[in-house]
Amino acid sequence: MRDKKLVASIRDAIISAGLKDGMTISFHHHMRNGDYVLNMVMDEIAAMGFKDLTLNATALFDIHMPLIDHIKNGVVTTLMTNYMSAGLGKQICAGVMENPVQFRTHGTRPDDIIHGRTPIDIAFVAAPQSDDMGNCTGKYGKSACGSFGYAIVDAQYAKKTVVITDELVEYPMVGFTVPEVYVDYVVVVDAIGDPNGIVSGTTRITRDPVGLVMAQTAAKVVEHSGLLVDGFSFQTGAGGATLAGAKYLKDIMLAKGIKGSYVMGGITKYLVEMLQAGCFKTILDGQTFDLDSIDSLRNDPRHQEVSLYHYAGPNAPSCIVNSLDTIFAGATEVDVDFNVNVHTDSNGIIMGGSGGHSDICAGAKMAVIITPMFRNRLPMIRDRVTTITTPGKDIDVLVTQGGVAVNPKNVELKARLQAAGLPIVDIHELQAKAERMTGKPQPIRHGDKVVAEVIYRDGSIIDRIYNTL
Amino acid sequence: MRDKKLVASIRDAIISAGLKDGMTISFHHHMRNGDYVLNMVMDEIAAMGFKDLTLNATALFDIHMPLIDHIKNGVVTTLMTNYMSAGLGKQICAGVMENPVQFRTHGTRPDDIIHGRTPIDIAFVAAPQSDDMGNCTGKYGKSACGSFGYAIVDAQYAKKTVVITDELVEYPMVGFTVPEVYVDYVVVVDAIGDPNGIVSGTTRITRDPVGLVMAQTAAKVVEHSGLLVDGFSFQTGAGGATLAGAKYLKDIMLAKGIKGSYVMGGITKYLVEMLQAGCFKTILDGQTFDLDSIDSLRNDPRHQEVSLYHYAGPNAPSCIVNSLDTIFAGATEVDVDFNVNVHTDSNGIIMGGSGGHSDICAGAKMAVIITPMFRNRLPMIRDRVTTITTPGKDIDVLVTQGGVAVNPKNVELKARLQAAGLPIVDIHELQAKAERMTGKPQPIRHGDKVVAEVIYRDGSIIDRIYNTL
Repeated sequence: MRDKKLVASIRDAIISAGLKDGMTISFHHHMRNGDYVLNMVMDEIAAMGFKDLTLNATALFDIHMPLIDHIKNGVVTTLMTNYMSAGLGKQICAGVMENPVQFRTHGTRPDDIIHGRTPIDIAFVAAPQSDDMGNCTGKYGKSACGSFGYAIVDAQYAKKTVVITDELVEYPMVGFTVPEVYVDYVVVVDAIGDPNGIVSGTTRITRDPVGLVMAQTAAKVVEHSGLLVDGFSFQTGAGGATLAGAKYLKDIMLAKGIKGSYVMGGITKYLVEMLQAGCFKTILDGQTFDLDSIDSLRNDPRHQEVSLYHYAGPNAPSCIVNSLDTIFAGATEVDVDFNVNVHTDSNGIIMGGSGGHSDICAGAKMAVIITPMFRNRLPMIRDRVTTITTPGKDIDVLVTQGGVAVNPKNVELKARLQAAGLPIVDIHELQAKAERMTGKPQPIRHGDKVVAEVIYRDGSIIDRIYNTL
Repeated sequence: MRDKKLVASIRDAIISAGLKDGMTISFHHHMRNGDYVLNMVMDEIAAMGFKDLTLNATALFDIHMPLIDHIKNGVVTTLMTNYMSAGLGKQICAGVMENPVQFRTHGTRPDDIIHGRTPIDIAFVAAPQSDDMGNCTGKYGKSACGSFGYAIVDAQYAKKTVVITDELVEYPMVGFTVPEVYVDYVVVVDAIGDPNGIVSGTTRITRDPVGLVMAQTAAKVVEHSGLLVDGFSFQTGAGGATLAGAKYLKDIMLAKGIKGSYVMGGITKYLVEMLQAGCFKTILDGQTFDLDSIDSLRNDPRHQEVSLYHYAGPNAPSCIVNSLDTIFAGATEVDVDFNVNVHTDSNGIIMGGSGGHSDICAGAKMAVIITPMFRNRLPMIRDRVTTITTPGKDIDVLVTQGGVAVNPKNVELKARLQAAGLPIVDIHELQAKAERMTGKPQPIRHGDKVVAEVIYRDGSIIDRIYNTL
């Protein structure tokens, strides 16, 4: 006999799933800054009078600003996330929460859920398409987001899972990602998000000349690293300069006839083009950024959807990042020990988070950070980063417009790049060069209240973020 | 840094996975009667001197006859399986084991594993294609078996998983079913099975005139049941008469323009042809029986691979069998209370097992059993089946060459079928009719030692099988 999972409202789902004060609820961020679901659910939970919840989200954006009220009112008293945008970050840094925010990485979060360190009582899954039993996916629907990499683990390991969808299809859906066996309730709403905020119609590479110079240099670093051979694997993010780096790398790979193995990242059309051009045999996709990439995920079997645990779980028997040859990533600051900050700006205010930064840098044979020497008259190479996101031991090369610094541990790599004529400089020289143009930055003053803890891949607290004064 | 999972031999994998006396190991039967893996592993385990193991297999075939020696020698002291072929069954019924064999259903087995009632220490997965991190599938490779429905749960929930493959491909494999995060060790062997035993080049519908009559009648039962409307869902097995029933059903669906939702079963080319003809929008495939169907699974996104937990887990939040409209299944015996036996022959000797029989009959709105009135001069309709596999409460219609018996609980259905001119008879009349041709069968004499327990979907022991005298 058919089970009944459809409930009439989010409130009914909350009641059915048995929410109680003190429980942990989870959200994923495939809807990004277009997400309506977290706010809808939290508003309902607050209206129902629940208190003292732990909210475990894969990432939080400024569309989630109403969360600040739920924090102030004691509805949410613990916050776990891998990323937080600047509007929320400013409030957290102002000290609105009693407990410090727990920042994890994209790999550590599912790992901690799966191994029982941060169990989830109720997962709320924003599903662009679902049937009435909860077979669901992000690949189809008016709010399509592409890969469902974050949602897979939450749905599977939460004690109860509620699917919230704005496109109900006839059972059984074709092309499901999460099977019904992990879903307890299904709610249909008018809209789970704003399509314009979920994916971009087009992703763009930078047109900034400094960015293009750095991108070209980064591609040359890979070219001469000794890693660019058949079977090469690569990840890049969706930032303008790193994407431009991928574009230059594509040209080199095509010119040399290199057949790579896989490419990962937030997936954009530039990476899809590399697949289609034969630079890689497969895309492993935990998060899809634009419409062309969603189309590729739907139609090209070489474009494979993966969970974030598969992507980067540090205690999984193996994970994809551990097989990476090289990655391009950005930084808000780097220091002379090659530590990287992507959590806070130079005033110490939260405006990001690791996401997969620490995961890919730890896993890859060569981690390349692309960042300008200065931004807005502030030098980006510091004596010490304001916040350590990724430790210097995991960073191999820093590319700036003023030269390339190689981590001193990489003696052979440095020699290779020097022999290839790349502009190798000591990181202290880069720092001095930047400071000649910007002056020595003032030390940041902050309060003594810990507003956030940065949890590294091994579970240790690698740094703390303090309140602003 | 890359993890290392490749080990040199099955022996090394057994050592690495930490096998100890008394542990539970598991196998799946996608290699069917062509399987080499279970014997290779068990021979090694026996040679290493392990004792007192529980062996949990999805099904056992006569290729696994060497298991009898491992039972006699005390290597295996508990056996769990959903199906056992006649050669092994005869030995079990002769009393070679101290503990009774535990028969489960295809749905109950993964359910018990997932919910911790029958935990697995080490799962051995026979993988037709794998990479060196254990991303693996049954869809490709020289020993391709198609769907990996049974292997998915074992790999995911076992404490340790060993993948044994005869086709290692470059990392990361394209089209994996089981992701590397569930795999601890990978062993490469020359052959995991005999392709001729794994799948058949062609599946054949019966040419037996009695089978064809029954098949045609069964299709008419569906036609007039009231269930054959758009959205119709269906499962059939791969037996000759049930397949012929599917063929007749296809003709009816095409003639009436019925657009069904999904079809399940051991998947054969007949079901693939129904998909391609537009009779169904999708195939849900836990087990693939022939080369045409493997081809469809590889290339047609409407042909979806599902785990056996998804298929039929009785304690899952929902499972596919619960959405079924109708099913065709066979029987070795039926009794006047509509109980069905597919475990033992009429001499009480084990020669099968539920597989998914109990699951689909419990889930479907209408379960149709197709069986001749007699085989080899033995009547198939008994006062009481020798072994209850599926209780009569879950059976709706019995189709024989001598007429159609409807379970008395189905008053409305019986009226519909009668009105449609189907040859409806009381089951006692069918029994009498058969016995007029065969005589009343002798009661079976058996010993008082329980050699097997039949565990129903709710965990209760629905019947016991005794030793032969």
